[in-house]
Amino acid sequence: MRYKMSKPMSTYIRQSVQDLQAYTPGEQPQVEGLIKLNTNENPYPPSPAVARALREFAADSLRLYPDPVCRTLRERIAAVEGCAVEQVFVGNGSDEVLRLATRAFTQPGGAVAAVDPTYSLYPVLAAAEEVGYRTVPLPEGFGWIEPPAALDASLFFLANPNAPTGVFYPVETIRAFCRQFKGVVLVDEAYVAFSGGRDCLALAKDLPNVLVCRTLSKSFSLAGLRLGYAIGSAELIGAMYKLKDSYNVDRLAQALALAALGDVPWMQDNARRIVATRERVAAELAKRGFRVIPSGANFLFVEPPAGKAAADLFADLRIKNILVRYFPGERTGRYLRVSIGTDAQMDAFLAAL
Amino acid sequence: MRYKMSKPMSTYIRQSVQDLQAYTPGEQPQVEGLIKLNTNENPYPPSPAVARALREFAADSLRLYPDPVCRTLRERIAAVEGCAVEQVFVGNGSDEVLRLATRAFTQPGGAVAAVDPTYSLYPVLAAAEEVGYRTVPLPEGFGWIEPPAALDASLFFLANPNAPTGVFYPVETIRAFCRQFKGVVLVDEAYVAFSGGRDCLALAKDLPNVLVCRTLSKSFSLAGLRLGYAIGSAELIGAMYKLKDSYNVDRLAQALALAALGDVPWMQDNARRIVATRERVAAELAKRGFRVIPSGANFLFVEPPAGKAAADLFADLRIKNILVRYFPGERTGRYLRVSIGTDAQMDAFLAAL
Repeated sequence: MRYKMSKPMSTYIRQSVQDLQAYTPGEQPQVEGLIKLNTNENPYPPSPAVARALREFAADSLRLYPDPVCRTLRERIAAVEGCAVEQVFVGNGSDEVLRLATRAFTQPGGAVAAVDPTYSLYPVLAAAEEVGYRTVPLPEGFGWIEPPAALDASLFFLANPNAPTGVFYPVETIRAFCRQFKGVVLVDEAYVAFSGGRDCLALAKDLPNVLVCRTLSKSFSLAGLRLGYAIGSAELIGAMYKLKDSYNVDRLAQALALAALGDVPWMQDNARRIVATRERVAAELAKRGFRVIPSGANFLFVEPPAGKAAADLFADLRIKNILVRYFPGERTGRYLRVSIGTDAQMDAFLAAL
Repeated sequence: MRYKMSKPMSTYIRQSVQDLQAYTPGEQPQVEGLIKLNTNENPYPPSPAVARALREFAADSLRLYPDPVCRTLRERIAAVEGCAVEQVFVGNGSDEVLRLATRAFTQPGGAVAAVDPTYSLYPVLAAAEEVGYRTVPLPEGFGWIEPPAALDASLFFLANPNAPTGVFYPVETIRAFCRQFKGVVLVDEAYVAFSGGRDCLALAKDLPNVLVCRTLSKSFSLAGLRLGYAIGSAELIGAMYKLKDSYNVDRLAQALALAALGDVPWMQDNARRIVATRERVAAELAKRGFRVIPSGANFLFVEPPAGKAAADLFADLRIKNILVRYFPGERTGRYLRVSIGTDAQMDAFLAAL
């Protein structure tokens, strides 16, 4: 969303807010028959346990405030992830987790850092908090590159698998980086359920400067519920609890997330289906001359064959009622990011190409 | 919530966050038979339209992101309040609205201001945003006093009715203040539904520097849903939209708030009942020698008769399973704040005294 200010220089509004280029979420058009492969939503519904919890939820209980610290839900997460309750922060989507981390783990005038390209929200968060944003350019193909030892930042955002590329970085590589980095490393594992069982949770448990951030949006099919969490040392988690809004997660989100986390096999089955579809589509696209970046996520980052610009292909697909994501820019403008839908949706996508 | 840091001087955590004394929400104990008069929750359930919307909500739709700008809900609010959609901000509870305002309407090194006593969240927000907090001490009885013209602050938080006192300030008095104040005045109308139909909405529509903030927590019996909104000039509203988390209000909250706002008479009936109960309890307490501050809210701020300290009475009531709110401190420590429950709950409270 961009908002035109009614005055170019407002006396009321913080200068950095006037200057801020807000994050642009993927389109959410309400178009009949649209095949929506642009925001990495899960094509399969959440667990029936979620629908059951919804039906059983007593509307009258909404008159009472929610638990401000999500105690029951944190206990469930701690049990699922094998850590202490004090090592779990629960937020209103991982957006909130990332914002609080940006604030809590930088000093005024400091900076955060990330590889480039990566999730386009990170620089927006840095700008909103008035801290610098340092980038470590990834090599061609978007594989890992060791950030310089003297990197002047107190927080490193590391999406793994990375977005929008889908590249998964090996845990031991990240561990080595976390050991040498002098600040906090936030490993954003929004897509980790699609990377074959490998994750950085052990780093968050072993090292005092590592947070792992998860979301129920993708793997648990609950983007509409807004539930993200972080795991790390009690010190880092406690700082985020001090900063959060008093009642940041509503009663329904707490109850339904609890239900979803009680049915991990449902999530895993869907993740396996999506991975199988992803591999089939990746092979087919490669056969057709696309360059396909190896993905550990629920999307593919692909470069169309020579002679077809990504922006043009995006527009062509849009006309055929297929919505994918295009990120303009030097590092990303040759590619399209295609969320993995159902097999039928992906067949329609392949047919439309 | 207070969190003990594992290290007194952390290298990872922002100094202001280490120093922050986080806001303390009212207790939410899970005690059988407890009469909970401590957090100004509504004793009556939300509209049956909310329960209906909950039952009809398709759990499967939770796999999709919510509308990031709550378009439909904003249209409903704009229709109810008689303003343009661009003049409405919808947030994850009014907590979010207040936090975003603190950020958006101060410059670095600036300050916010408020009367004293008032809602104890305001100084926490100022500290979290690293801006100053100026106070205008209210006179004995907590009536209005004109803030000094030279007040060095760019945002004024004005709870009306005020909390925890319940005092309602006349709209024309506030209008005069808003006209002379050089920054933004945020009129926090969390309790306005209990003040007899008088509100400051016209100021938010007429003046470029006034925001009115509302919540569904109290009057609409939806504290558990987290839904607050602000109304003001498109310029002020637009600044808050730039800063908010991408998807700040989940799908269920949007759907259920829409249902609640479709049944305003239900809310008004409950508000009338609560006001009637409040007036009855106020008269009874006055008869028993309490000093009762005239309230326009769903709570009473009362000073026990001579010889009984408020803190002691708080403790006595707690033993009898009645929970009210006690705010220590020079300005508030002689009083108790008692939320208005059902008539039966208030009779139990009166009997316990």
